[in-house]
Amino acid sequence: MAQLILALDFGGTKHTAAVAGRGESAWRGHARAYSPPGANALVDIEVMLRLARQVLGGAQPAAIGVSFGGPTYFGTGLVRRSDHVPGWDNVPLAEMLTAELGAPAAVDNDANAGAIGEHAFGAGQGHAHMLYVTVSTGVGGGWILNNAPWRGVDEMAGEIGHTVIDPDGPRCLCGKNGCVERLASGPFMADDARAVLATQPGRGALLRHLAGGDPQAIDGALLSRAAAEGDEVARDVLRRGARALGIGIGNAANLINPSLAVVGGGVSRAGEIWWSALREAVAETLIAGVRLEVVPAALGDDAPLWGALALGAGLL
Amino acid sequence: MAQLILALDFGGTKHTAAVAGRGESAWRGHARAYSPPGANALVDIEVMLRLARQVLGGAQPAAIGVSFGGPTYFGTGLVRRSDHVPGWDNVPLAEMLTAELGAPAAVDNDANAGAIGEHAFGAGQGHAHMLYVTVSTGVGGGWILNNAPWRGVDEMAGEIGHTVIDPDGPRCLCGKNGCVERLASGPFMADDARAVLATQPGRGALLRHLAGGDPQAIDGALLSRAAAEGDEVARDVLRRGARALGIGIGNAANLINPSLAVVGGGVSRAGEIWWSALREAVAETLIAGVRLEVVPAALGDDAPLWGALALGAGLL
Repeated sequence: MAQLILALDFGGTKHTAAVAGRGESAWRGHARAYSPPGANALVDIEVMLRLARQVLGGAQPAAIGVSFGGPTYFGTGLVRRSDHVPGWDNVPLAEMLTAELGAPAAVDNDANAGAIGEHAFGAGQGHAHMLYVTVSTGVGGGWILNNAPWRGVDEMAGEIGHTVIDPDGPRCLCGKNGCVERLASGPFMADDARAVLATQPGRGALLRHLAGGDPQAIDGALLSRAAAEGDEVARDVLRRGARALGIGIGNAANLINPSLAVVGGGVSRAGEIWWSALREAVAETLIAGVRLEVVPAALGDDAPLWGALALGAGLL
Repeated sequence: MAQLILALDFGGTKHTAAVAGRGESAWRGHARAYSPPGANALVDIEVMLRLARQVLGGAQPAAIGVSFGGPTYFGTGLVRRSDHVPGWDNVPLAEMLTAELGAPAAVDNDANAGAIGEHAFGAGQGHAHMLYVTVSTGVGGGWILNNAPWRGVDEMAGEIGHTVIDPDGPRCLCGKNGCVERLASGPFMADDARAVLATQPGRGALLRHLAGGDPQAIDGALLSRAAAEGDEVARDVLRRGARALGIGIGNAANLINPSLAVVGGGVSRAGEIWWSALREAVAETLIAGVRLEVVPAALGDDAPLWGALALGAGLL
């Protein structure tokens, strides 16, 4: 009987546990739960342990792979912090899981796990060198170089969201101006759309209508829908975000010259207007001689969970 | 007796040959010559072969390492082209040198060779992961990752000069706007200074004086001198160039997280005004958690020649 690998994905509030046999690429069990309101790290770990025991059904895992939605140290299995949930500062997550479940554990951040997942099971199969980018409430990135995750000396590599592409651009949460994340993430694009609606009363009638008259209701998904239905404000904002991301991806390709960029996250489902602006900006940014294929993520929001499976398999 | 390694550096018009014993870090012989006016690839190769035979003094090299000032294919030993000298399109340089000198040859571009040289013999010693940047008539870059050169799938990695940091900035030779090279290279900074002098007649008296009244006489070195002596136009232009380069280096560090950036090339000798603006921009661009040491090249313009030595040694 194949050894079992337990894959865990700690999202901000959404937690998933799944189990597969070694060498398998389908789940034997899969369970998901949401954090209760006001959760903290210990509550989230309890939720996850319950899910883990549920998918294991009494069986013993041989290894545990973990994706965490925040900065981690892969080398020591530590979570550094969470920007969303309190209590995660310097939590020895790998050690705790090993103590509870009796198997070695590997912990990585969700952008790296997404890269590992797409490389092993998704759109990156066969590419030795690739960049994975996830665009949703933030913009994260992870590298595969020589068929292995590239983490950097401080395990901080892949921060494409905080590369600057417009020093005179709007202020990012990180304090700089014109970061890719400030221009391309869902919430910031929604901010930009609200700013247009507030200052240009004659524009965006459809977007206003779809938001039910409440600009606060605008999010990335609503922008995509409005753009698809022809709203020019939504189209402008999505194109601007996609262009910024495309310049960031093109810059990364000029620097490292991988063969592939896999783009996932909620914003990547924004439709053809967004994708064509993205591809155009990448193509314009690549210097002659640098080629780069840009494709959507194949595993959707499950990329980090599949990456967790590959991380666990790497321990065997 | 130690095996001899022949190191060759094909610059735009300046060619250097040197020889060292395997494991040595001092030259046994070193010779330099300039191309005659109107030279082409064959003339340059003849000049270099003469220098090579001179430094070898009748001895037989065991290996040949070559730095070339333009794009190459390390894998096949081919020069792709030169942007300065005609006749270099698809020249099988490694093969030709092997036929003439009877030893295996490795060929790389000067930015990669500079990275290899600084890593093996210069400021990058002891750093497993580093970025080398050279700023002179252009802005080039080379990576060392895991103690080895990183070239990318098209052997085009390191093109930091053509990363975009200001999409609304001035037009670069490559056709894009706001590339690092357009903002930070010596000739482009000179252009920017001339533009200020032409449009702001009350400014830059010292710079005008140092240029002997002829703005065409302004180059990177003159800008540095004028800045050191207090000229505000020269200072502004140098600071702007250094800031652009610093954002580019900071972006690269956020993406790959090496421990060190080594900065060389003529512009890197521009003095403290330039260096402090560079370091400030890098520090502002790094995201929390990413550290990066930024230091001047230790080998000066000889970094590619030392890299050629290391490339040759790698064949033994």
